[in-house]
Amino acid sequence: MSQAVIAIHGGAGTITRAAMDAQREREYTAALEQVLLAGQRVLADGGSALDAVTEAVRLLEECPLFNAGRGAVLTHAGTYELDASVMDGATLNAGAVACVKRLRNPVLAARAVLEHSEHVLFAAEGAEAFAQAQGLELVAPEYFFTQARHDQWLRARETAGMALLDHDAATLAAQAAKPADPLDADKKFGTVGAVACDARGNVAAATSTGGVTNKQVGRVGDTPVLGAGCYADDVAAVSCTGTGEMFIRTSAAFDVSAQMRYAGLSLEESARRVVMEKLPAIQGRGGLIAVDRAGNVTLPFNTEGMYRGVARVGEPVNVWIYG
Amino acid sequence: MSQAVIAIHGGAGTITRAAMDAQREREYTAALEQVLLAGQRVLADGGSALDAVTEAVRLLEECPLFNAGRGAVLTHAGTYELDASVMDGATLNAGAVACVKRLRNPVLAARAVLEHSEHVLFAAEGAEAFAQAQGLELVAPEYFFTQARHDQWLRARETAGMALLDHDAATLAAQAAKPADPLDADKKFGTVGAVACDARGNVAAATSTGGVTNKQVGRVGDTPVLGAGCYADDVAAVSCTGTGEMFIRTSAAFDVSAQMRYAGLSLEESARRVVMEKLPAIQGRGGLIAVDRAGNVTLPFNTEGMYRGVARVGEPVNVWIYG
Repeated sequence: MSQAVIAIHGGAGTITRAAMDAQREREYTAALEQVLLAGQRVLADGGSALDAVTEAVRLLEECPLFNAGRGAVLTHAGTYELDASVMDGATLNAGAVACVKRLRNPVLAARAVLEHSEHVLFAAEGAEAFAQAQGLELVAPEYFFTQARHDQWLRARETAGMALLDHDAATLAAQAAKPADPLDADKKFGTVGAVACDARGNVAAATSTGGVTNKQVGRVGDTPVLGAGCYADDVAAVSCTGTGEMFIRTSAAFDVSAQMRYAGLSLEESARRVVMEKLPAIQGRGGLIAVDRAGNVTLPFNTEGMYRGVARVGEPVNVWIYG
Repeated sequence: MSQAVIAIHGGAGTITRAAMDAQREREYTAALEQVLLAGQRVLADGGSALDAVTEAVRLLEECPLFNAGRGAVLTHAGTYELDASVMDGATLNAGAVACVKRLRNPVLAARAVLEHSEHVLFAAEGAEAFAQAQGLELVAPEYFFTQARHDQWLRARETAGMALLDHDAATLAAQAAKPADPLDADKKFGTVGAVACDARGNVAAATSTGGVTNKQVGRVGDTPVLGAGCYADDVAAVSCTGTGEMFIRTSAAFDVSAQMRYAGLSLEESARRVVMEKLPAIQGRGGLIAVDRAGNVTLPFNTEGMYRGVARVGEPVNVWIYG
C-alpha cells in the first residue's frame, strides 16, 4: 500500500512577492488549500487517483482565481475557448476536449470521453455535442466572465494586438524588467492541474485551461495533448503549465515518464531535466507537477513562481506560491 | 553527409493479396512510386527533409486513393474533418491543424503554422481562418468527395451506426474471419505520412488524414497530436497510421525517439517494440515509418498490410503493400 497523495498547480509565471498584495495571497492560498483538502478526502475515503484528480481540477475550474473554467482568459475575439484532459495511469485510458466554449467543466467532459467513448480527443462543437449527450452542464459564455480577466484582455489587446510571442526573448526581458503584475503570470502560463497516487499505487493526472490571453481563435496549447500537458502510465503521472507550444514540441509530460523508464532516472531528476534543461533549450517557460507510483512528488518550475500544493493522506496540506 | 532518403506510407490495415485485384494493386503501386519520386527529387536537388515530407504528403492528399485530402473518409454526419501535422527535427519546430473542413491541403496549413505562427496547433474554424490569411486554398466539401468513400460510409452506417470500436476484440476477430475488402483497411486505419533524412542529416516527419469512416463529429485522432502520430527531433522522425487513440495513449511517435535516446536502442528495435509490443498491449493496430539521422529506415506494422515505400537519392524507389 502506498501513502496516497495529491498535488495540484494553478499556473506558473512571473509571480513575485513584491507584486502580490497580502489579500490576494490569502485568497490564492485559501483556494489551493480547499482544493487539496477535497482531493485528500477522496483519497482518504479509498477513492482512486483518477477520481481525486478529476475532483481537484473540477474545483479549480469552479474557482475564478485560476485560468480554467470560470475565470478563464479571453481569446483575441473576446470569446472563451477551453481545453482539458485526464489520464489514468493504471489503464492508459485517457480523455480530452479542445476548443470548447460552452462546457461548465471541461475536465468532466474529458472524464466522460475517457469513460464513455472509444475515442480520446474531441474538438469544438463535436466535443460539446458529446458532453451534452453525456448529460454534462452547458453554460452561456457569460458564466466564464470575470472582471479581472476582461481587464487583462483589454490591456493585452492594447499592448500586443495579438497574443504575445511566447518565445520572444525581448518580450520576456521587458517583462522581467518591469514590476510584475501578479496576473501577468496567468496571462501567459495559466493552467490548472492535479496528479495523484492512490493507496493501490495507481497514478493519474488531469489538466485544464483557458489558454493564453488574447490568443488567436482556434489555438490549442499542450493541455489537451496527451503526452505534452498531461500524461499518466505505470511509472508516473504529470500535469504541466507554461508556454504550451514548447511542451508540445518536447512531449514534456511523457518525457518525464520515459526518462524514468528507459534511463533509470528518479522522478525528481527526470522532471528537473525537462523543466530546467529541455524546455529552456527552446525558450520554454513554466513548470509541472509529477507523482510516481511510490508516492514521490516533485513540483519544478523555471519561472518566478507557481501556484502549487501537496496533500498526503493523514498529513497537513502544504501550499506554496513563490520560488 | 548522409545519403538522403524518404519513406512514405498510405495507411495500414487488413490489406491482403486475396482481396486486392490486379488493377487496384497497380494503381496503388503507381501512386506510391510517383510520390516517392517527387520526394526523392526534392532531396536530390538539395532540399530539406522538411520540404521533402511536406511535398510528399501534399501529393498523397491530392491522390484520391488515400484517406487524406481528396479521397478522405466521411464522418457520421456525412461531412469531412481533416487533420495534419509536420515537424522539423533540426529545430523541433512543428505545426498542426485539427478538424478542418475546407482546406484543400491540410499539410500545407500545418506547414504554415510551423513557419508563420508562434503557435503549434490550431483547431476547426480558427485553423481555417489562419490558413486563409496565409493565402492557402479553401475548397467546398465536394472537392473531397469520392464515390468509393461515400459507398464505404453508407456500408459503415448500415453495419455499425457509429464508428467501430477500435479496441473491440470481437469486431477485429469478425473482420479477420471474413474475406477482407481492400478498403476495409482505409476505413479504420487510413492515414498518409512521410519521413525523410536530408543530406545534412536533418530529419522531418509529416502526417495527414481524414480520420476513420463514420467517426463521430469532432473526433480527433493521433495525426495532429505531435508525439503521437508525428514526431521529429535530433534522433529520429516518425509518422504513424493505425487506431489513433492507442497511438495517443502511448505517445507512440515520441516513444520511438525516446527509446533510442535513453535506452540506446537502434531505430529498428525501438520502432519494433512500439508497434509489436506496446501498441498490441492495448489492442492498438497499425504501423509507422521512421528514419534516423544516419539514414536508417524502418517500416513496421502489426496489420496484414501497409501501403509503403522508400526512395534513397540515386537509387530506384521501392514500394510494398502486403506483409
